[in-house]
Amino acid sequence: MQILTGKEVAEKVYETLQSDCNAFVEKYGFPPTLAVVLVGNDPASQSYVQGKKQACLSLGFGHRDYHLAQTTSQKELLDLIHELNEDKTVHGILVQMPLPAHLDADTVIQNIKVEKDVDGFHPQNVGNLLIGKHGFVSCTPLGVLQILDYYGIPVEGKHVVVLGRSNIVGKPMASLLMQKGRDATVTVCHSKTENLTSITVQADILIAAIGKPLFVTESMVKEGCIVIDVGINRVEDASRKRGYRLVGDVDYEHVSPHCKAITPVPGGVGVMTIAMLMKNTMQAALQLAQKETQ
Amino acid sequence: MQILTGKEVAEKVYETLQSDCNAFVEKYGFPPTLAVVLVGNDPASQSYVQGKKQACLSLGFGHRDYHLAQTTSQKELLDLIHELNEDKTVHGILVQMPLPAHLDADTVIQNIKVEKDVDGFHPQNVGNLLIGKHGFVSCTPLGVLQILDYYGIPVEGKHVVVLGRSNIVGKPMASLLMQKGRDATVTVCHSKTENLTSITVQADILIAAIGKPLFVTESMVKEGCIVIDVGINRVEDASRKRGYRLVGDVDYEHVSPHCKAITPVPGGVGVMTIAMLMKNTMQAALQLAQKETQ
Repeated sequence: MQILTGKEVAEKVYETLQSDCNAFVEKYGFPPTLAVVLVGNDPASQSYVQGKKQACLSLGFGHRDYHLAQTTSQKELLDLIHELNEDKTVHGILVQMPLPAHLDADTVIQNIKVEKDVDGFHPQNVGNLLIGKHGFVSCTPLGVLQILDYYGIPVEGKHVVVLGRSNIVGKPMASLLMQKGRDATVTVCHSKTENLTSITVQADILIAAIGKPLFVTESMVKEGCIVIDVGINRVEDASRKRGYRLVGDVDYEHVSPHCKAITPVPGGVGVMTIAMLMKNTMQAALQLAQKETQ
Repeated sequence: MQILTGKEVAEKVYETLQSDCNAFVEKYGFPPTLAVVLVGNDPASQSYVQGKKQACLSLGFGHRDYHLAQTTSQKELLDLIHELNEDKTVHGILVQMPLPAHLDADTVIQNIKVEKDVDGFHPQNVGNLLIGKHGFVSCTPLGVLQILDYYGIPVEGKHVVVLGRSNIVGKPMASLLMQKGRDATVTVCHSKTENLTSITVQADILIAAIGKPLFVTESMVKEGCIVIDVGINRVEDASRKRGYRLVGDVDYEHVSPHCKAITPVPGGVGVMTIAMLMKNTMQAALQLAQKETQ
């Protein structure tokens, strides 16, 4: 059984990004730059935003921090986004989700310039992904793909079962894998799926992204399958100092002995997400800089 | 075995559209209007365009015909589209595909205003469909849904196998069915799928959209399944006056005895496509007129 370590893959990605970033700065005289917008004081969001900032700093990317008050109005937020859309020194724009309830996330996302939407959440990027055109792809599914590629796991013709149909993971994951050139046979399952186990046991590759701790048990996988665990769940654990531990959507202890390969939690898919965000930002910077110098 | 007659469903749709159209004209003083752009002289395209015109005329919709020369440049075509985008008396814009090889279909589609893209091909409409937001949906998958709804065929929790991953049918079909509220478990198969039959025999509902005549044989379906045949293929037939007959992607003669229900070809899904185009045009007209009077 092989453990698919995200950390190893992410390190390779960061190495490449480091040299891409240096080459970019040398050529254009300014760094690829990510603007991160946070509204309110949610501690988890603050910690995510901090992680993104760290990644920028350590690679030499430019970084812009916009921390707005919880009471920020929709108009104020949109005004900032429009300003960042026009700002030629900003290449990627990320609005940390979730937003406070009085703000309309869909409208906010739709107002981010498609060319700077490094989260890949804009409907036009989602559509381009589905129809196989160039665009930004949501970071977590992109990270899963990177892991599969890094470890040389073929998906062509294979039956990939995606557990979960979120807009951030399940749907873009399925879209990516069914494209020509990837050529996986993809099934999307979810909370309403009948006879779920009868489907998951068919998976050559099972991608769990439902946000339910230890949901996938050993009876749900076939011998020799490959399991990608996207879940990151906190479960109470009195034996830990902080009172909880992180577990995936997969019961790793009992499932992993039956797998050909599996991603651990933590240290699997999770570490890829920010790496892919940086990769998307690099891509945005290159495209925008090339367009600018045309 | 029940035959799912598209004609019956389409007639109901046309009835509703007829009265919606009358109400629209009464309220706004002008009809919902579709502009159809044809480039070149492909006989099949000319016949499709003619069918759309007929549907407009018989419902009382406005209709604009733009028949451009085969030699039309990309710029000329885009200029026309931008003009139609701004024209307040035009609500839907359809560019008949395929375009001559020297024109870039993707760029053309991306230049159609999202609010007038009644074919549902613009990436932003494709993306909105996948993430479950309001937008225009490609007409053929919408027609399949209408047939399922009309005959009261539940899809929730059912395993739907979509054969084919085209941008026009397979992918939007899968997107529609996996949404919350529809809740089907969807598998997308294609030419690279391994052990295809082992997957199709699991289908509660099998949707064939691969453009291969009589591809689905009786060994590929389970007893009591529902089969939707999107294929319309010409096969040579010396016994017919015109030298060919139309067949679907499904071997109807041998498959249908095993089905709970099946769509015929012709007279099944095919007749729904133009009906859904008219429905989309009605929707576009209502939205644009409401926006205009706000």
